[in-house]
Amino acid sequence: MQLAMVGLGRMGANMVRRLAANGHECVVFDMSPKAVEDLAKTDGVTGSTSMEDMLSKLSKPRAIWLMVPAGVVDKTIEQLEPHLEAGDILIDGGNSYYIDDIRHAKRVAEKKIEFVDVGTSGGVWGLERGYCMMIGGSDKTVEYLDPIFKTLAPGIGTIDRTPGRPENKGTAELGYLHCGPNGAGHFVKMVHNGIEYGMMAAYAEGLGVLKAANVGKHAGEIDAETTPLRDPEHYMFDMDIPEITEVWRRGSVVASWLLDLTAGTLAQDPELSKFGGRVSDSGEGRWTIKAAIDEGVPTPVLTASLYSRFSSRGEAEYSNKLLSAMRYAFGGHLEKKS
Amino acid sequence: MQLAMVGLGRMGANMVRRLAANGHECVVFDMSPKAVEDLAKTDGVTGSTSMEDMLSKLSKPRAIWLMVPAGVVDKTIEQLEPHLEAGDILIDGGNSYYIDDIRHAKRVAEKKIEFVDVGTSGGVWGLERGYCMMIGGSDKTVEYLDPIFKTLAPGIGTIDRTPGRPENKGTAELGYLHCGPNGAGHFVKMVHNGIEYGMMAAYAEGLGVLKAANVGKHAGEIDAETTPLRDPEHYMFDMDIPEITEVWRRGSVVASWLLDLTAGTLAQDPELSKFGGRVSDSGEGRWTIKAAIDEGVPTPVLTASLYSRFSSRGEAEYSNKLLSAMRYAFGGHLEKKS
Amino acid sequence: MQLAMVGLGRMGANMVRRLAANGHECVVFDMSPKAVEDLAKTDGVTGSTSMEDMLSKLSKPRAIWLMVPAGVVDKTIEQLEPHLEAGDILIDGGNSYYIDDIRHAKRVAEKKIEFVDVGTSGGVWGLERGYCMMIGGSDKTVEYLDPIFKTLAPGIGTIDRTPGRPENKGTAELGYLHCGPNGAGHFVKMVHNGIEYGMMAAYAEGLGVLKAANVGKHAGEIDAETTPLRDPEHYMFDMDIPEITEVWRRGSVVASWLLDLTAGTLAQDPELSKFGGRVSDSGEGRWTIKAAIDEGVPTPVLTASLYSRFSSRGEAEYSNKLLSAMRYAFGGHLEKKS
Amino acid sequence: MQLAMVGLGRMGANMVRRLAANGHECVVFDMSPKAVEDLAKTDGVTGSTSMEDMLSKLSKPRAIWLMVPAGVVDKTIEQLEPHLEAGDILIDGGNSYYIDDIRHAKRVAEKKIEFVDVGTSGGVWGLERGYCMMIGGSDKTVEYLDPIFKTLAPGIGTIDRTPGRPENKGTAELGYLHCGPNGAGHFVKMVHNGIEYGMMAAYAEGLGVLKAANVGKHAGEIDAETTPLRDPEHYMFDMDIPEITEVWRRGSVVASWLLDLTAGTLAQDPELSKFGGRVSDSGEGRWTIKAAIDEGVPTPVLTASLYSRFSSRGEAEYSNKLLSAMRYAFGGHLEKKS
Repeated sequence: MQLAMVGLGRMGANMVRRLAANGHECVVFDMSPKAVEDLAKTDGVTGSTSMEDMLSKLSKPRAIWLMVPAGVVDKTIEQLEPHLEAGDILIDGGNSYYIDDIRHAKRVAEKKIEFVDVGTSGGVWGLERGYCMMIGGSDKTVEYLDPIFKTLAPGIGTIDRTPGRPENKGTAELGYLHCGPNGAGHFVKMVHNGIEYGMMAAYAEGLGVLKAANVGKHAGEIDAETTPLRDPEHYMFDMDIPEITEVWRRGSVVASWLLDLTAGTLAQDPELSKFGGRVSDSGEGRWTIKAAIDEGVPTPVLTASLYSRFSSRGEAEYSNKLLSAMRYAFGGHLEKKS
Repeated sequence: MQLAMVGLGRMGANMVRRLAANGHECVVFDMSPKAVEDLAKTDGVTGSTSMEDMLSKLSKPRAIWLMVPAGVVDKTIEQLEPHLEAGDILIDGGNSYYIDDIRHAKRVAEKKIEFVDVGTSGGVWGLERGYCMMIGGSDKTVEYLDPIFKTLAPGIGTIDRTPGRPENKGTAELGYLHCGPNGAGHFVKMVHNGIEYGMMAAYAEGLGVLKAANVGKHAGEIDAETTPLRDPEHYMFDMDIPEITEVWRRGSVVASWLLDLTAGTLAQDPELSKFGGRVSDSGEGRWTIKAAIDEGVPTPVLTASLYSRFSSRGEAEYSNKLLSAMRYAFGGHLEKKS
Repeated sequence: MQLAMVGLGRMGANMVRRLAANGHECVVFDMSPKAVEDLAKTDGVTGSTSMEDMLSKLSKPRAIWLMVPAGVVDKTIEQLEPHLEAGDILIDGGNSYYIDDIRHAKRVAEKKIEFVDVGTSGGVWGLERGYCMMIGGSDKTVEYLDPIFKTLAPGIGTIDRTPGRPENKGTAELGYLHCGPNGAGHFVKMVHNGIEYGMMAAYAEGLGVLKAANVGKHAGEIDAETTPLRDPEHYMFDMDIPEITEVWRRGSVVASWLLDLTAGTLAQDPELSKFGGRVSDSGEGRWTIKAAIDEGVPTPVLTASLYSRFSSRGEAEYSNKLLSAMRYAFGGHLEKKS
Repeated sequence: MQLAMVGLGRMGANMVRRLAANGHECVVFDMSPKAVEDLAKTDGVTGSTSMEDMLSKLSKPRAIWLMVPAGVVDKTIEQLEPHLEAGDILIDGGNSYYIDDIRHAKRVAEKKIEFVDVGTSGGVWGLERGYCMMIGGSDKTVEYLDPIFKTLAPGIGTIDRTPGRPENKGTAELGYLHCGPNGAGHFVKMVHNGIEYGMMAAYAEGLGVLKAANVGKHAGEIDAETTPLRDPEHYMFDMDIPEITEVWRRGSVVASWLLDLTAGTLAQDPELSKFGGRVSDSGEGRWTIKAAIDEGVPTPVLTASLYSRFSSRGEAEYSNKLLSAMRYAFGGHLEKKS
């Protein structure tokens, strides 16, 4: 079927490629004419010079998929809305806050424009693996877009079906799911990313414990302001972290796609020399914790993983200075320099 | 090759089956004659009536694999040791503390008996999937036992090789790894389980946030001692948790074997009606945190996942009473009954 | 000076008593005529039968202090506003969210009504000890109300002045502080309560560790699904928690007013028999974490203390069931019943 | 009464001064002859040139108080033991691990030497304020040493007695307590310090949130890899942290001695310019968590406060690099440089 794509970054462009390669007709637009031009060389893809131009190339009802940074979704909708009509469909497939979806849906509903929010996971691998999609919107519109979702999704592929789950139960095993009304798609995606933070931190902390399993060899260097290691002989292991991540890939309880990627990275750069350890966080981790707090549901693991990222960027510095200042004030403890 | 197995529980018996099915000769013993008898019906498996009987059926150097509860390893080694000779090999494949391995290895080394510690992951699925093994011991002995490890391990199977990793780099991609000297095997397994705790908690917390995504529907019931939900309209989602775990299995960043199992469980028992929510913990989670503390490495996520289990069993009750008592003391706040 | 008080609960009524006892003229109103009647017996206190009646008894500019639940501040301001004039002063002294202050201030500023937000700490002890007040608003209005704040505040009392702090530096050492523009008062109060949560949890957890210092005496009861205690002889202490809190009150680093109260409570009810351990949370703890997340500042301790309260109320139950379900799925582990 | 003091550092020397000033007879020794010489100028203090010399100056039964670093207690006891006799008393008043006390007590008991462990809080303020002491040992010996404890302790002083606590209940309100058999003293001190960590972190985190309350003013600087602040207008406060700590000292729920010290430090160095934010930890925090884990008691707040210190020293760096590496692997996210 026909779909317009606004925003041709890494995600948007690859999604168009996957759609076009499977017979869908794509009309594309981006603020960068170069990005449009490049993609328009693909069979089945039509470029456009402006949003109006793009809209004029679509048959009604028009389906427009936004794949733009969360920060410009508002502005993009504002620009599109005057040109849209009842029955047209706006899809926000980016990393938007589900609370904005609820607002956007309410806004465009006044003109009987349909709104669909799609949380899209897959990153740079989606073109090849397919995109896992979590969808919010009305039954009618989500069903209407089914051909699009089916193509973008991974499908069952080589992954075993879940034993006990009826085959006719729906699309989830194809890699996309209609999660509920507007906002539900990005809500589920938000929590997905919250879990992702937690899993990443679980691996990172565990591998950190393995990395330091040789501290007993350096125990003599520790001074009076730090607890001496009582049993240095218990920490004499020089662990081969890349090979440990490799061995866990088969048969262990912690096997996962994230582990596969980690093993791949460590195989090529065992010391992670390219990275400084300042970890960014996008919105979903923060939003997950805010939702958990609103709900009154404890999420200590997910929150700890978010805070580790804050700390990695030096955001605890003032608090840490305060701790040193207090130690000095009550005990005369001087801070060690390194 | 020939191997003796002591301890024919779920793990030990299945490992024998996998070995025997692949041409190894197994001599088995268990405190329960019935367990021995049952397993001895398998081709390639010889039962024995006592440890001495078992030892007498082995050619030297004898290799004896212990698959007994961590609490009886000491006693079992004490019973075996007098009957062993220089060159014989003792393998502890259970869930032992790596610090005990170091002690055991030192002890039997006095008689030139070899000791090997093997952390074994795979649970009830190992017979079919193979066991992921993390091994500690001397190069010579671990190499000698290679045929055993190769058979127990999953092998490469259908899982893609790690891109960039040389093919001749070693056994890790077959699912077993010689991690270092004695203790290294169980150290790596310990951390594996620590990570497992963290991953499990990441999923459980995230799904908990999804489960409560409909609290806005019940907002009116909340009373004065609890913060009212400011925006109930943001929490009106009745999420289908089983289908959400299913959709994440393909193409998402959080895909994993644990997620596969979770989806399978929820497909059959969406309300988890069989479980009360009192979560046990075996030693590895605790030991991982103790190691992290000795090393001075922060593990907030792994620790939070351990504490959630403690709390699930009511172990925070006294602390919680104290909190209520303080609130009453300074603010006259009365505890809500439910 | 003259002040109207709306809301004669525990806090509001006691504040009026403290003001009236020190020569201020108070006009009071509450939804409960009984509460008004009771308090109006106090010298210097005038009751009123409605908000209009109350306003009519005030000379201009009128200063009205709201001491009502956070949930009814909006409604109360709506009722008052039509009767107020330029120059009148609205003070919200309750437990409001500072974000609401910003909104309220903006709203009433349209009619040139002044708004002041006051975070008030002191609980049931304020009448006697005085109230610690954190104030947001314009310089002019906060200065105008200074006589009120000075009376409500504790004053220097018997607590030593901070060495090195100039005597003429401002009111902070009297127990009240103009923290900044509107919202600043409740922002500081919010964080005050966040810290309070953390301190309370620090005591509660520590005392919990002391309470369980005799687990070695019961070590035999532990079964296979739980890690056995390796060194029961290290946990043979029956600690006298009430006396331990008492001894820390003098000369220790952890001495505090909260500890004084805790010791007082434990002296009278060592087993805390009146409490079930379901700990409520009011909004400030949650809001503190949300602010920290917006700021990107890690607050692991404050967050953990909030989550402990959630868990104490059973809010982790679904997550815990999931953990048990996963353990069963991969390892066949059955949940222990108690 | 007579007491020998071994170790004349900040703590030991001040304790001798307090004892001598109150009529006790002190015989002192330190590895540094200068330290002995200086202190011996004090009335009531006798220096000694060796441990033997010191012992020879004592009447039997001899009471020797060790105030040496935890790391040299073992060696010191080894040196003293051959010269001691049945009935002599060894007191370890340092920061020892209670598990070492149990071992030391057992060892010297073979010669009928009495052992007493004393956890001592008070830091550099103890000379003036008195020392809070938590004591482990036999009833007989602890009672025998009562005059020493009574002098070192703060006494009731100006702090109100706990309402409802019988006056004749024991020494706790004087600032010292016989907590139980050997090890109990340092166990209670260990937990005291664990609580101290938690309280310090609660203040430090809360003040950190206040410090960053102006992030809305810098919101424009935030880039694509970081979540934009949704409501910058909510974070426009330049908080006066020194004055905020001052105002909380009177009438608030978070008043404490630690807060007094913090206010004092901030009054003189508002920007904490002397500190880099690398926070040391002595053993007690770590030991508290290990005890909690052995007991199965959750201590999320105390643990988080320990981990913050680890992280402040860069101990999470490897884990953080792993997180960045994973983000790059699945999403192509590049790490921001600052």
